Amino acid sequence: MTNPQVKDIGEQGLLARLQRFCPPEIIGDDAAVLLTTPGKSLVVTTDVLVNEVHFSDVTTSPEDAGWRAAAANLSDLAAMGASPLGITVGLGIPGEVSVSWVERLYQGMTECLQRYNTPIVGGDIVRSPVITLSITAFGQAHPDQIIRRAAAKVGDAIVVTGIHGASRGGLELLLHPESGTNLNDAQKTALIAAHQRPQPRLDVLPILWNIFASYPPPLTLAGMDSSDGLADAVVQICRASGVGAMLESRQIPLPAVFAHWLTPEKSLEYALYGGEDFELVFCLPKAPAVTLVQQLGRGAAIIGTITSSSAVVLHDENRKIPDQVLSLSQGFQHFS
Amino acid sequence: MTNPQVKDIGEQGLLARLQRFCPPEIIGDDAAVLLTTPGKSLVVTTDVLVNEVHFSDVTTSPEDAGWRAAAANLSDLAAMGASPLGITVGLGIPGEVSVSWVERLYQGMTECLQRYNTPIVGGDIVRSPVITLSITAFGQAHPDQIIRRAAAKVGDAIVVTGIHGASRGGLELLLHPESGTNLNDAQKTALIAAHQRPQPRLDVLPILWNIFASYPPPLTLAGMDSSDGLADAVVQICRASGVGAMLESRQIPLPAVFAHWLTPEKSLEYALYGGEDFELVFCLPKAPAVTLVQQLGRGAAIIGTITSSSAVVLHDENRKIPDQVLSLSQGFQHFS
Repeated sequence: MTNPQVKDIGEQGLLARLQRFCPPEIIGDDAAVLLTTPGKSLVVTTDVLVNEVHFSDVTTSPEDAGWRAAAANLSDLAAMGASPLGITVGLGIPGEVSVSWVERLYQGMTECLQRYNTPIVGGDIVRSPVITLSITAFGQAHPDQIIRRAAAKVGDAIVVTGIHGASRGGLELLLHPESGTNLNDAQKTALIAAHQRPQPRLDVLPILWNIFASYPPPLTLAGMDSSDGLADAVVQICRASGVGAMLESRQIPLPAVFAHWLTPEKSLEYALYGGEDFELVFCLPKAPAVTLVQQLGRGAAIIGTITSSSAVVLHDENRKIPDQVLSLSQGFQHFS
Repeated sequence: MTNPQVKDIGEQGLLARLQRFCPPEIIGDDAAVLLTTPGKSLVVTTDVLVNEVHFSDVTTSPEDAGWRAAAANLSDLAAMGASPLGITVGLGIPGEVSVSWVERLYQGMTECLQRYNTPIVGGDIVRSPVITLSITAFGQAHPDQIIRRAAAKVGDAIVVTGIHGASRGGLELLLHPESGTNLNDAQKTALIAAHQRPQPRLDVLPILWNIFASYPPPLTLAGMDSSDGLADAVVQICRASGVGAMLESRQIPLPAVFAHWLTPEKSLEYALYGGEDFELVFCLPKAPAVTLVQQLGRGAAIIGTITSSSAVVLHDENRKIPDQVLSLSQGFQHFS
């Protein structure tokens, strides 16, 4: 192709071409890290959401769109080990949108942010033919406590901080309400809430640092969030770290109601590829991993081990499903 | 109106309604300020630019669109007294845009940023029906050296750091090349460059702090940039400070070539309302103001005085133009 279009090379291809404009040591994680003061790092992350691409009035009220946008950015900070300082909100909007729609969007963002003591500190509002919401969140972390993807070591346990697949289940109920006949109202409400009001896991950080303080250094830790799917998170960590992984499919924590609603294959598909659960995925030595899972409780689990292979393999101890190699290409792709 | 649309209340009306979602002490200047560490403030600003609203292939190459977007954000940092740390870039883009267009956009951004040692530290690229560029810039400043709008005092001199109207002149030549028959090629090129490659005045800050260090405190300083027009800047500072101003029209520094090209009325209109000159406007006591203008040289000038009136009045000593009261409504309005 002599003059390719963006759709020809996709998001990953475009990002690869644009990396030469960015310092290589700064990018490649959930957020950028800048050392501003000795002992303090500034952590910055940004997301752009476009109406009909990333959210839709069919499944998402403006309040929920606002909540989810804020939650996604706070989750990126949590994935880096950073405490939030604030967010800025850039809004592009057609003149025909009702003022109350915009107020409801901000209401939802604020409800999420207030739970994590994070202010909206500025923004820009401009006219645009399509509703576009771009959020930049910034936080701070101790330079020694930045959680990067590229730090997984062979033998590490792979920990998830909670169940996976619930958000995808909730989306399914919103898109196809008739599919939930096996579920009662409380079960449906819980799945839909997981999709509409995901909780960024900033609460995990103090627990994590507390455990780390009780082990002698050096203790390595790799991690990211599972916003683009659990499979994507494990593959990204392994690729960045130059390692592989063996995941035990029956160890992956699922919503209990899936057993009454979905086939095992569909349950696993939702958990691995559904995305937007906004849990954290960590790789760390076995002993602190066990302590972390115990202290986190509900839903947290060790789901596998980092290997010296170059593949991420999903293994089913019951042998009901043959071993699968997971790849990025099954994950979420913006331009696909 | 029971259910007004965004266009019914405009950008200012919408911002006023959304202020309740933001901490009042943080917003209202060119950028937000957060105290992160004793002795250090984090300064954050964000801009959203939409194709056909804020830039256009008719007058702007992708390189120039990138340069201008970066320059606008760096100018906001300069206006707050902050040194840049980095920017994030959120890009929404249709799949049909050529990859080279995107690379040229980043090339222009990088050219501007490199001049000010500022890295692109992250971003997001998503599919969108319209090209949308949202930039968040962050910098740092000493908490005592934050430059706010609301600090102008009666008797202060009003300083501009350079000529005004050149960017608007350059735009006119791009839109109507035939209008420049009185100008030679070098003159045209200089005006067009002022429009396409504006220079954020970060170079002013060390000069300013050096002058301030030689005067006994407390020395007050108010300021903002003139990106939305010189009139807008003076009116915004006066409104935020609860004061008025008397501007001397013949003191406003214009491009020398305007005298051969435009009527005095048109020259003044370009300087006051043209916008995008990205100079800084300061209000400070007379003695340091004189020193500042001397040290800045080319184009810098004292253009008036802060008064106890509630109006911003433009006065022509030659009495060719009657006194005018300047208002925000003549300035740049995104939704008008």
